[in-house]
Amino acid sequence: MELHVNLGKDSYQIVIEKGLMKRAAQEIREIYQGRKIAVISDDSVYGFYGEDLLKQLGEYWECSTVILPHGEASKSIEVLPEVYKKLLDAGLSRSDLIVALGGGVVGDLAGFVAATYLRGIPFVQIPTSLLAQVDSSVGGKVAVDLKEGKNLVGAFYQPKKVLIDPDVLATLPERYVHDGMGEVIKYGCIKDADLFHLLKEAGDFEGLNAHLTEVIMRCVDIKRQVVEEDQFDTGERMLLNFGHTLAHAVEQKFAYERESHGEAVAIGMYQITRMSEEKGLTKEGTAEEIREILESYGLPISCGVQLSKLKEAMKRDKKNFKNSLRLILLKQIGESMIYPSDLSFFEDDQMV
Amino acid sequence: MELHVNLGKDSYQIVIEKGLMKRAAQEIREIYQGRKIAVISDDSVYGFYGEDLLKQLGEYWECSTVILPHGEASKSIEVLPEVYKKLLDAGLSRSDLIVALGGGVVGDLAGFVAATYLRGIPFVQIPTSLLAQVDSSVGGKVAVDLKEGKNLVGAFYQPKKVLIDPDVLATLPERYVHDGMGEVIKYGCIKDADLFHLLKEAGDFEGLNAHLTEVIMRCVDIKRQVVEEDQFDTGERMLLNFGHTLAHAVEQKFAYERESHGEAVAIGMYQITRMSEEKGLTKEGTAEEIREILESYGLPISCGVQLSKLKEAMKRDKKNFKNSLRLILLKQIGESMIYPSDLSFFEDDQMV
Repeated sequence: MELHVNLGKDSYQIVIEKGLMKRAAQEIREIYQGRKIAVISDDSVYGFYGEDLLKQLGEYWECSTVILPHGEASKSIEVLPEVYKKLLDAGLSRSDLIVALGGGVVGDLAGFVAATYLRGIPFVQIPTSLLAQVDSSVGGKVAVDLKEGKNLVGAFYQPKKVLIDPDVLATLPERYVHDGMGEVIKYGCIKDADLFHLLKEAGDFEGLNAHLTEVIMRCVDIKRQVVEEDQFDTGERMLLNFGHTLAHAVEQKFAYERESHGEAVAIGMYQITRMSEEKGLTKEGTAEEIREILESYGLPISCGVQLSKLKEAMKRDKKNFKNSLRLILLKQIGESMIYPSDLSFFEDDQMV
Repeated sequence: MELHVNLGKDSYQIVIEKGLMKRAAQEIREIYQGRKIAVISDDSVYGFYGEDLLKQLGEYWECSTVILPHGEASKSIEVLPEVYKKLLDAGLSRSDLIVALGGGVVGDLAGFVAATYLRGIPFVQIPTSLLAQVDSSVGGKVAVDLKEGKNLVGAFYQPKKVLIDPDVLATLPERYVHDGMGEVIKYGCIKDADLFHLLKEAGDFEGLNAHLTEVIMRCVDIKRQVVEEDQFDTGERMLLNFGHTLAHAVEQKFAYERESHGEAVAIGMYQITRMSEEKGLTKEGTAEEIREILESYGLPISCGVQLSKLKEAMKRDKKNFKNSLRLILLKQIGESMIYPSDLSFFEDDQMV
């Protein structure tokens, strides 16, 4: 299954297919005839797929690797000099290629490295987590973290191709499945009532297995449309932030150590919909529908924190510098809107 | 005097005018109506112009400053986290502005910071060295240095406006004047025989003073044309590298501590033209014309190193990774060409 992202000279193809990993080299050959490839990955993912991928790529290109420890710490700005050094040692030039093999951390970091090494070299995304497959590998947002916060340094830099193999999700630890499902359900909420109902009927991740390729495709296709409309995230693309204002606050409150991103998004989606329903902005019963589906996929709907305590974190969010907030609310399942507001939307004494 | 750089949605204006620094705020108001400005500068330039500029900007915007020690060391990638932190502390958001006040080091670093902070925020260049005015402030090449070499990490990121005040060159130390004149003479060599002859008649930098605005304008206009043709440096823009293959090798050989960039470019221009003339690729007498003009502006034509010793450095240059070289040679004064070659162009036992 192929999708084409239309962004003028930065256009690219997304291929979604079970077993794709086994023929990654063929796919890459269609867009790259250079000399060298550097694969950037983490020690966990590389253990599963690295050797086979290198063997494939080695038939056509001179390959080198940069293997980082798995986990968010590898996305720190402090890691960059060592990554650039390895690319220089491998003699990677402007016309060579970077392949990002891994989840969101690897994709974001490798993308930022590709955007900045020698002022930019081409790169290919091979996302291996559900979250990366349906979200971070598409759309060109690349970034690293500062001590002061996540994704504060980055660029908009599009890959040359994205290769998504749903089969690789079989090796994904359960918590990472939940993580991705938060975002999958989000797509249903903001843009695709049919997807929402398909997820509801499937009941849980196992039940979803037969539909996995289609589900990923629908999510990526929504992301594609939104990115084509608004590559630089100044309008329409904000709809993708449904649930994220509260989610970022929850993640920061617990220093990213308790809720995963997907879990935090789940809490954020339910809670903000509960509030907007109370204010008469969302169709009655929507929050309840969201609660049911989240729980069936093993995702939380609350975290036991008073809103007043989350507001401090919200004030530090890079999107909220001006104290005004553009909240993403649902009109109903499958239909979302940008709702200009401010922190007073959140009532201090409520628990989420 | 105004020039317009046509790069589609990334287009911008360059204003060149004596006394412009005194009305920088008015110029910036034409393109920026946001809330905050962060001025990035170095302790030397800021001492001359910082206070007055801040006073002007302070009338319209909430201002903060990031003042770095002067000198190339401030362009290291290691400096970035501290610069980003200061911008975060000042609460700079995506819709605020960075102003780069300084020479090439400040412009390159501030430009890279602007390109990457929160995935990119707008910036304005106020170049204060001759080199930055005629070269680095125009064209969107921004970068930082790695331990392994200069400008190895960067981006193509265009400013919103460039403000060039030739009056500020009065406070420029003599060596920095030479530095800029190397590049000024280069523009005459590669694209503008009239400029070359104007420089020749003026005789030296003092003689040039009355023509300074025009000279800067002609250089910037050449750069503008070349950048419009080839924003991402894959063709025509290479002509700007005339003299630079040898120059980079000389700079690296002496760890950037002996020859300044302009001095190294002067040596590179003369020596490569001498060689290409010997090979019958350049009109006879051209090297001699270049020697005369360089010497009249106090620039060197040789550095007493054997070519074999420079080749090692050339091999490490990021443009030469594939051992093939695309040399820039003159057909005659004012006319240049890209000449595909390799390291054997340079004869081991010759001195430069």
